[in-house]
Order: sequence, then C-alpha cells, then structure tokens
Amino acid sequence: MLNLVWADEGGLPANDRGLAYGDGLFETVRMQGQQGVLLSRHLMRLVRDAARLGIVVSREELSGVCAQAAQRWADSFDNGWVLKLILTRGAGGRGYRPDDNMRPNLLVSATSLPPEPDAEGVMADFSRVPLSVHPMFAGIKSLNRLDQVMAARELHDGLFEVIMSNHDGYLVEGTRTNLLLKTRDGWVTPPVSSLAVAGVMREWLLERLRERGESVLERPLAIADLTGPDCQGLFLLNSVFGVVPVRRLADQDLPVDSGLATIVHPHDLLE
Amino acid sequence: MLNLVWADEGGLPANDRGLAYGDGLFETVRMQGQQGVLLSRHLMRLVRDAARLGIVVSREELSGVCAQAAQRWADSFDNGWVLKLILTRGAGGRGYRPDDNMRPNLLVSATSLPPEPDAEGVMADFSRVPLSVHPMFAGIKSLNRLDQVMAARELHDGLFEVIMSNHDGYLVEGTRTNLLLKTRDGWVTPPVSSLAVAGVMREWLLERLRERGESVLERPLAIADLTGPDCQGLFLLNSVFGVVPVRRLADQDLPVDSGLATIVHPHDLLE
Repeated sequence: MLNLVWADEGGLPANDRGLAYGDGLFETVRMQGQQGVLLSRHLMRLVRDAARLGIVVSREELSGVCAQAAQRWADSFDNGWVLKLILTRGAGGRGYRPDDNMRPNLLVSATSLPPEPDAEGVMADFSRVPLSVHPMFAGIKSLNRLDQVMAARELHDGLFEVIMSNHDGYLVEGTRTNLLLKTRDGWVTPPVSSLAVAGVMREWLLERLRERGESVLERPLAIADLTGPDCQGLFLLNSVFGVVPVRRLADQDLPVDSGLATIVHPHDLLE
Repeated sequence: MLNLVWADEGGLPANDRGLAYGDGLFETVRMQGQQGVLLSRHLMRLVRDAARLGIVVSREELSGVCAQAAQRWADSFDNGWVLKLILTRGAGGRGYRPDDNMRPNLLVSATSLPPEPDAEGVMADFSRVPLSVHPMFAGIKSLNRLDQVMAARELHDGLFEVIMSNHDGYLVEGTRTNLLLKTRDGWVTPPVSSLAVAGVMREWLLERLRERGESVLERPLAIADLTGPDCQGLFLLNSVFGVVPVRRLADQDLPVDSGLATIVHPHDLLE
C-alpha cells in the first residue's frame, strides 16, 4: 500500500527519501482529458523499475491513482495536460539504509502542456556535460537527474535539446529525449544498456518500425553517424512531444524526413 | 536570499527540484549543544559545491541558519544530535531546465545521534554495487545518492560499512565514509577526483597528518592494498563518527592501530 499525496494539497514529508537521496522514480504522462499517451507503458515501466530498486508497488494501485487524477484535473485543462507521478521509497530509514518494508510515497501533480516543438524540425546542439550511466540504473527514470539538469542549463536561444555523450564519446540521448537516426541502411538507436532513460515512446516506436519490416539496429552512435553523409534524418523521441525531427544540429543543417512524424502523433496513442 | 523551512514545521513545496531531480546538496553536522563538529568546513563545502551547480548561497546566510538551529534544538538532545541541511536549487523551472535566478530552498532538521561504532574496530565488507562518479560532480555531496542507497541495503548482521569500487576496480569509499589506509610507507587515500563525496573529516585529517610531517599519498586503492601484507590498518572517516578502525574486512582480520582514533574524536572538533 502506498501513501498518496496530491500535489495541490501539499508536498511529501520532510524526511522523504526521494528528496534526501533521489531514492525513487518518476513518470510524466501527456494527457488529453482523462486519457493518457502510452499510459499503460508508463505504468509498466514504473512498476518494473521500482522493482529494480526494491520498491514494491502494484500496477493496479497506480492505475487506480491515474484514474482518480484524470477525474480530478481533466476539466482544468482545455488543450491537454501533463500528469506527473513521483514514486519514492518512503520516509525515514537510517541514513542511506532504508528500513525493511517501507511504505512508498506517491506524489501526483498536473501541469499544463509545454509549447509544441516546431513540426518542421527543431534546433539541437551537443552538450558539454558528459552523461554518466550507472550500469545498475541504466534506462531507469530515477530521481537522480543532475546530469540532465546541468545539461539543460545549456538550452537557450531557441535550442530545443542538447545531445549528451558518454565517457567513451558515443552520443547517448538528449536531456529529455531518446535518439533515432535514419540511415540508408535503416534505423539506428543506442541500446537500452547505454541509456540513462529508456523512453516509452522509443520502445513503442521501435516495435512499430519492426512490425513494418524496417531494419532497426541498436548500437552506439558516433558523432560521425549524425554529421556524415549516411544521415538521412535525426529524430528526438519523447512521449510528451512525440517524434521530433532535428533540422539543425550545432552548425550543420540535417535532412528532415517528415515520414515518421506523420505516422506518430501523441494524440494517436491515447489510452 | 534563500527560503528557509524548518523540518519540524513542514516539508519543501511539492514542485521542489531537490525531490524532482536531486537538484541540490546536503550536509550532516554532528552537534553537541550549540556547537558543531567541523561546522565551518561543512558550510564552506556547501557554499563551494553549490557554486559548482550554479546555486547561489552565502556562507553568512548559512551560518545564521545554523545558529538559529542550534538555539532551536540544543536543549532537546542530551547526548549530542545531528543537524541536517538540505539545500536545493528551488521550486519550479521548465522540466530539467531551471529558471534564471531561482530562490534556493533550505530544509533544516535535527535527529538524534546514531549509535557509536565500536571503538575497537568495526566489520566491513566489499559492496556488490559499483560506484559511478560523474567527473563534474566528483566529491560533491549532492542529493543524487542512489548508488549509496543501493549499497547500504547490503548492510546487515553487524556490518558497519560496505566499501564500493569504481568501474576500474579500484576501491573508492564506503557508503558514508572515506577510506584511509596505513601502510609501512605512510598513509594512502583515494584522490578527490575519484570520490563521490569528499568528506570534511578526510580533509581535516589529511591536513593534520601532513602538518605532523607524515607521508600522505593520494592514489587509487586496489583490493590488494587492503588485504596484502603492507596494510597496517584501514580507517573509515566521517565527521559524525570520527575515525573508525576496521578490524574485519570481508573474511579477513585487519591489524587495528589505535593511534589515530585517540588523536581524533569528533568532540575535539567542536566549533
């Protein structure tokens, strides 16, 4: 049983471990009325990654909370909204060490949609902040997000995203988006084991592309893959924004292929 | 100007970035009455590391808060207490990206002292959780502490600490302590650039040892350094516990040198 807190009624207890240590996870779900984009995948990921951290929560409990949240806030937003779930291990413990059988806290909030990215393509750059992915936490949307915060401070002057590299020099992901590259030989994206966050839009889209018989290769991405002649388009994936083509990367124009954007708009993925 | 919150009156706002992303820092200070162990070093570190994250806070402001906290709580604890400061970048922002000129939040709490470790030495083991240190955040006591949480879950059956290794296989630190090894040739400790948290007790002690003309080498520590014949004693450093000798590491007894423990007790470092 989790302890539910509505953000419009208050915050978590002062000794919550989410604040103290980032000991928890979060999800942000794009909502339209009472429906959510890829909602079941968001909840599946949250339950799965919570288990990796030893936090016990059930899919049924989360679904029930989302239904309550949808009723609570759907009428407050005309043009869609964002539902945010912050799940923490709970309050207390002895320093870093959690107590056994802690009761998780779930903080639920609603915000308005961010501005839509330009459908004709956005501007991105390379981040100067390296991305450090702990192998135990690869792909997990945990509350430990200082890398992304520091990189997001580089966003200015119309930049939609900065792309972060790992210590081996491979491009991994944006601060809030996964990468998908179109090449002459098919689609390329970095493997989950290298990712800070394995997005649900990425997961959904790779399944659709493979269903259509297209080639999808999961391998490390080098800078030359994006800036060389093989690049037929770079896409940023995120379940709130959908599939966003990059038209300019640092000081270079990229080809913009609109085929993907037209097949995937978050509106089509409401549940 | 920071926004001060006393933990016995409430928590931080629901949209605080410390909870959302671990976007902040903390300090835990051992207190005796209204005095704190190495208090000025704690505050210096907090101001310095906040600046590395782009969080603006002044030493004077923090000192004033600590004086208020000491007055508030000193009489509530007979045998010492722990003052905890959690400093966050503030509430809000657009996703990971902070707004300009955010007002930091400071959450201040008091807890009782943890049990004292056995002065004759404690038991430690090697952690199975690798320690991942981001080069931009090396040594910073940030709120991103999932590595330490997952390692601390291994603490049981009288274990005082588990020692974490980095991806190169070098021993770096405990979940809450820095390492100091006594060898025939002098003292050895891993360099700050490799540390998750550069403790104030470590800093103070290295200065004292060097003042006494002893050899202190900062270099990576291999497992063989601790388990081989050169090891004359392993110490765990922490400003709450002081200098704690390890008498048993995994399945091996270590020599216990009491010389260091007698020269440093946290009580002697009250300010």
